[in-house]
Amino acid sequence: MNIYDVSKKANVSIATVSRVLNGNPNVSDKTRAKVLAVMEQLGYTPNVFARGLGLNTMRTIGIMCSDSSDLYLANAIYYLERDLRSNGYDAILCCTGYELETKQKYFDLLCSKRVDAIILAGSKFVEMKPRDNTYILDAAAKIPIMLVNGYLEGENIYSTVCDDQAAVYQAASRLIQSGHKKLLYVYTSTSYSGSNKLQGFKNALADAGLPLLPEYIRQCRKDITAAKELFFSLKKEGLEFDAVIASDDSLAAGAVKYANTAGISIPEELSIVGYNNSILSLCSDPELTSIDSKVEALCTTTVNTLMGVFSGGNVPSRTTIAADLIKRETTNF
Amino acid sequence: MNIYDVSKKANVSIATVSRVLNGNPNVSDKTRAKVLAVMEQLGYTPNVFARGLGLNTMRTIGIMCSDSSDLYLANAIYYLERDLRSNGYDAILCCTGYELETKQKYFDLLCSKRVDAIILAGSKFVEMKPRDNTYILDAAAKIPIMLVNGYLEGENIYSTVCDDQAAVYQAASRLIQSGHKKLLYVYTSTSYSGSNKLQGFKNALADAGLPLLPEYIRQCRKDITAAKELFFSLKKEGLEFDAVIASDDSLAAGAVKYANTAGISIPEELSIVGYNNSILSLCSDPELTSIDSKVEALCTTTVNTLMGVFSGGNVPSRTTIAADLIKRETTNF
Repeated sequence: MNIYDVSKKANVSIATVSRVLNGNPNVSDKTRAKVLAVMEQLGYTPNVFARGLGLNTMRTIGIMCSDSSDLYLANAIYYLERDLRSNGYDAILCCTGYELETKQKYFDLLCSKRVDAIILAGSKFVEMKPRDNTYILDAAAKIPIMLVNGYLEGENIYSTVCDDQAAVYQAASRLIQSGHKKLLYVYTSTSYSGSNKLQGFKNALADAGLPLLPEYIRQCRKDITAAKELFFSLKKEGLEFDAVIASDDSLAAGAVKYANTAGISIPEELSIVGYNNSILSLCSDPELTSIDSKVEALCTTTVNTLMGVFSGGNVPSRTTIAADLIKRETTNF
Repeated sequence: MNIYDVSKKANVSIATVSRVLNGNPNVSDKTRAKVLAVMEQLGYTPNVFARGLGLNTMRTIGIMCSDSSDLYLANAIYYLERDLRSNGYDAILCCTGYELETKQKYFDLLCSKRVDAIILAGSKFVEMKPRDNTYILDAAAKIPIMLVNGYLEGENIYSTVCDDQAAVYQAASRLIQSGHKKLLYVYTSTSYSGSNKLQGFKNALADAGLPLLPEYIRQCRKDITAAKELFFSLKKEGLEFDAVIASDDSLAAGAVKYANTAGISIPEELSIVGYNNSILSLCSDPELTSIDSKVEALCTTTVNTLMGVFSGGNVPSRTTIAADLIKRETTNF
């Protein structure tokens, strides 16, 4: 017996039931009466959503991430914890790795405990096959599920995403406008975020009338040395490229090291754009032009949205934040 | 009324009371009888330590760190969470910043809640003035306090530290043996770990009969660009140095960028040793020789020690782990 049953039986949304529970005035008297009647009929006692009001709550939010030592996720966890704490919530951290089975197991473990909501940090939690996401949809019937830079459609699921597609589109277009013709795109993963970045690259080439050649789109693991080796092997293959866009700064840092070793001048002979504007962009020499994916804004918005859900407000199920292109030494635009 | 009162009244250690509570056979019959008598006399009901047995426990550990986005601490949190979870414990993360007042406030908050122990990650929690540490000593009367690479003497406080002093001593000695005479030491903080590193540097110079000149010991904030600027300003001052030992890879990465920009060849004219063997050591070009401070071993040992405390075993109050010197391209030894 939960809020989901009430919403189904009353034929209203979970958000509406939540608003009734929270005494939010933004519900018509008629709807309120219907919801309360169903609650009485079903013998429903508010628990999960009522926690948001400080009733019977542990005031604890589960944060799940694949790997908290990843540069991007480490920043995300820092900002999420900070903003949750400033709202009086504790954060239980759960690092799941990348296996679906482990992710599901830890997710169920958090759900079965005492958390008021779960935040999924990073875009590695939404799977390609819809049935692999049912465990998230099921949990959303009980507690709000917040996605940081991932997207999944479903009631009581809220996404805050960076507009990765527009960011890569902009970077690629700038490179093309400044005379580059052979753009190489290197990426680490095919997650929600990863797919959007790649789409931005493809769109920029199409809009500029440049051919889309599969050999100019390459995957590499998130590793500076592996990336450096990839560029050397591409050169050996005879592939010519005058610009690199990487889905992560680590791959861009590998491109810088490749160029430095091969005696290729940056940005005169090779322009390089990284992603995430991490510490690696400042450690690289020359420093990386990089797309700032606004992790702090994403996290602050996620927590603000969650607080809005708890107070029964009208919150958007999806918020998109624009990235910034930070120009440094690896491009001449 | 807590375990501390029992231990004082019975004139035995907290560990002994814990062993009695946990039914550990490693207590004499006489001591056991005395402790049980005091408990009855004081009307003591075991709660905190009994939690370790799964009685009335939330199986939750508080992890405090100054900043979870710091490269070293992000790794520490990852390993601590992983090892706690594999023992069936949740981790509540708490990022405190660097202000004593905030640290105390968050510490008290965790204590007042439901955690079975608190892990203080990083050496930023032990203050110079003893009275600034009383809040930690007070808490240790109730729950075990674990320090990762920090040290504080006190009952129910357990430290796992890296032998930073020996590591810097070894690196400096190697540099001296390979012909370096003007070693520059740059550091970020004067924490427990920071003091030990500096002492290692001083000892190596003293043992080699080299003078200890204050202008060769410099502080810098943990920032690649700030470090690069520091080296340029030292050069402008006319300070000559043929080797740099940095207390953190970020400062060593700054030294590499300084040398690359100034046209100084590494390692022929300048040798550089970093600390923490982080991603920055692989991003630098040439790659940094760096001291691996064994954060994974530190965290695993911390969690193992804590589990030993919970089960009432005889655990050392201080465990020291040796660092590794990882040789890469910025030194010729």
